[in-house]
Amino acid sequence: MTHAKVREFVADTRIVREAFSHFPSGVAVLAVEVDEQKHGLVASSFMVGVSLDPCLVAVAVQKTSETWAALKNARAVGVSIFSKGQKNLPRQLAAKDRSTRFNGVQVEVTSDGAVFLDDAALWFDCSIYDVSEAGDHWMVLLQVHRLGGGDVEPLIWHGARFRELAVEAIS
Amino acid sequence: MTHAKVREFVADTRIVREAFSHFPSGVAVLAVEVDEQKHGLVASSFMVGVSLDPCLVAVAVQKTSETWAALKNARAVGVSIFSKGQKNLPRQLAAKDRSTRFNGVQVEVTSDGAVFLDDAALWFDCSIYDVSEAGDHWMVLLQVHRLGGGDVEPLIWHGARFRELAVEAIS
Repeated sequence: MTHAKVREFVADTRIVREAFSHFPSGVAVLAVEVDEQKHGLVASSFMVGVSLDPCLVAVAVQKTSETWAALKNARAVGVSIFSKGQKNLPRQLAAKDRSTRFNGVQVEVTSDGAVFLDDAALWFDCSIYDVSEAGDHWMVLLQVHRLGGGDVEPLIWHGARFRELAVEAIS
Repeated sequence: MTHAKVREFVADTRIVREAFSHFPSGVAVLAVEVDEQKHGLVASSFMVGVSLDPCLVAVAVQKTSETWAALKNARAVGVSIFSKGQKNLPRQLAAKDRSTRFNGVQVEVTSDGAVFLDDAALWFDCSIYDVSEAGDHWMVLLQVHRLGGGDVEPLIWHGARFRELAVEAIS
């Protein structure tokens, strides 16, 4: 079968990553504080609207993630969606050196240990609802208990870089 | 506990829908042809990068979806990510009257019955890998066998409307 559109096979992960990067999406950071240590996991494989009742969002987490080990037993998980003014933060929060990731980053920490970034586009106060296997990742369902935001424009991950939405003409 | 950021509880689904709409995302249509009938399911709760080996993407589907009944037994499912030039297509393909959804829509149908939209931003040729419960939705994992696209800019769902990415300055 010849097929004009789906011309590439997925055996080459380089091609797959490249194609996946062309799906546009907001970027989330899941963050907690445990024993006065902050842990943050940056994810672009994140979706809202998984369920309304209960209120669920989802994130795919690499099975090899060391940060996941700190998050998976947390009572509460803070989810912040980066705003367009936070272009440099995802890379800082995903840096190899875990000890300096939160240096200079303004956050709010709840009594349950959920960590939220100041000036984010959206916030979800969550607990872990379900974890299931999805190939080389965990599919993590987070139950949202409270939420806020929506006042500033989000950052968009597209084409392996951070972009902004176009300003709309007022009609 | 007072908390500046996550100020709204999720009991009100109107508030939840509003907040979820502020997470920016590409929009997908899952489409198949069965007995010469085309079926399309438009979803903004879609994520790539769920797994690389096997190659998986995910979509959350309302349990009440009538279209899902047609898709769930399909041998192959075509996934198209709308491009910025296709602003009017998601609403047409999600219209109440199923019989006219594909009227005038240019598509390519594979011998397996996967349906792909012309001029989309991305295409994934998939089969259903796993379906699990996620509250009032099904979490559907799709295994991607072949893919294509990445040459045109995508459409973005944000703030309950369709938007475009800003043009970037050449540096």
